[in-house]
Amino acid sequence: MSLKLIEKHRSFGGEHCKYSHYSEVLQCDMIFSIYLPSNKEMKKIPLIWWLSGLTCTDDNFSQKSGFQRYAEKYQVAVVIPDTSPRGENVADDKAWDLGQGAGFYLNATQEPWAKHYKMYTYLVDELTAIATTLVPNFSGEESIMGHSMGGHGALVIGMKNPTRFKAISAFSPILSPSQVPWGIKAFSSYLGEDKNSWKEWDASELVKETSVPPILIMQGTQDEFYPEQLKETIFLNNAKENNQEVNYQKVEGYDHSYFTIASFIEDHIKFHKNYLNKY
Amino acid sequence: MSLKLIEKHRSFGGEHCKYSHYSEVLQCDMIFSIYLPSNKEMKKIPLIWWLSGLTCTDDNFSQKSGFQRYAEKYQVAVVIPDTSPRGENVADDKAWDLGQGAGFYLNATQEPWAKHYKMYTYLVDELTAIATTLVPNFSGEESIMGHSMGGHGALVIGMKNPTRFKAISAFSPILSPSQVPWGIKAFSSYLGEDKNSWKEWDASELVKETSVPPILIMQGTQDEFYPEQLKETIFLNNAKENNQEVNYQKVEGYDHSYFTIASFIEDHIKFHKNYLNKY
Repeated sequence: MSLKLIEKHRSFGGEHCKYSHYSEVLQCDMIFSIYLPSNKEMKKIPLIWWLSGLTCTDDNFSQKSGFQRYAEKYQVAVVIPDTSPRGENVADDKAWDLGQGAGFYLNATQEPWAKHYKMYTYLVDELTAIATTLVPNFSGEESIMGHSMGGHGALVIGMKNPTRFKAISAFSPILSPSQVPWGIKAFSSYLGEDKNSWKEWDASELVKETSVPPILIMQGTQDEFYPEQLKETIFLNNAKENNQEVNYQKVEGYDHSYFTIASFIEDHIKFHKNYLNKY
Repeated sequence: MSLKLIEKHRSFGGEHCKYSHYSEVLQCDMIFSIYLPSNKEMKKIPLIWWLSGLTCTDDNFSQKSGFQRYAEKYQVAVVIPDTSPRGENVADDKAWDLGQGAGFYLNATQEPWAKHYKMYTYLVDELTAIATTLVPNFSGEESIMGHSMGGHGALVIGMKNPTRFKAISAFSPILSPSQVPWGIKAFSSYLGEDKNSWKEWDASELVKETSVPPILIMQGTQDEFYPEQLKETIFLNNAKENNQEVNYQKVEGYDHSYFTIASFIEDHIKFHKNYLNKY
């Protein structure tokens, strides 16, 4: 396995590391970042996944959220994948909301996407094996969070694996991708026109069927994509009808940017921590 | 005056704003950012200046340091200028350490730089008039801090105006620009070959002559530019001989990046706060 450390920075007492590796699942080189807290007390450390939004790489959350302060404070490792397969030989689209930077955390079935766009399997299997090995004294516990398209990804991956992920949180997530422009465009392209095939990637559908991990969602009232892309009513109604535990919070005056994520990431990590380190 | 608000984000309860304006001093359009804390108690608010390093704009500190949390916590406004004049008609150099993005916070006297490169006067006069007006309930108190080239700028501007700036702090500053490659290149270009003209822009010289504000300096031991560009001995010796108050700290394992700034910016803002709000 070709894992290569390409950056390492001390940050809030822990280490922020960036790695590259060749992904067998995605058939291309990939980059991810991982933060390891100092763990001075040599405890068991859980792992939180962060999934980023459209156009992002691992850098946006790594550099703009300030999460490292809280990952150190609460002694959790955080892994930050890229948002799609990458490279000259990987299918792409001129638009910023399809193709590279816009993998939607699913397994594509349609050409030209099917060969590389398997972000779900990449995250849940291949990158998991790598990331969990990098956490010294890993507790075996995981949870998942994300922003916008990555909020959708966190909800879908978390709900599809409800015993593995102990908690899910999201900033401004796409909650009903089958009903909003970003999701309809992506699902039509990656999954085809048969809307039955969309259901297994739609949080508003998944929340009906499973007993899901506890969920925290924050939505800024000044978010420039709310409500068009981020409407919550279908998801919340379906969650309520099925007695799922969802804490949906509106935050007054906040927008879709990383300024919002930075302002509230401590609340999210604290929320996750409540369900981790239960060994 | 052409001040134009181009971005506004709620951040940690306050407002992070980005403005553009035409600078008479620099003869070009300029951008800066300013953070205004919530000031719920309607107190008098001081203003801290942040000066960035080579290649930066106002965005680096705004997006990567997480300073807003502490500016809100300690109720201080922070203004973040660009690092040079900008634009197609502004002299530039292909190198990243000269010209646009590398103004060194001085007033150039040599062509082709002299027309636009007057960052010292721009900051100390023109931008001061704008920024202080934007702080509601401004206390009249200021202090200054920066990183690398901006640490040099903070020290020079602070020491040249010792009654105006109540405190100075710097991350990994260029302390002896007349003695190190970055400084020699910049000073030769902007000020000419007569090294006497360099002295008024060299912190190691200024610290000999004035009764300076209290100074905090942090230097990472894994900084990739230390000691070559950032050596401290001349400055510290001159400070000691003149009984200046300098707290020079080495931080173990930290590098030249914003991961270091993010890790310690609270300490810097706390340091400044000790000397502000004395009214």
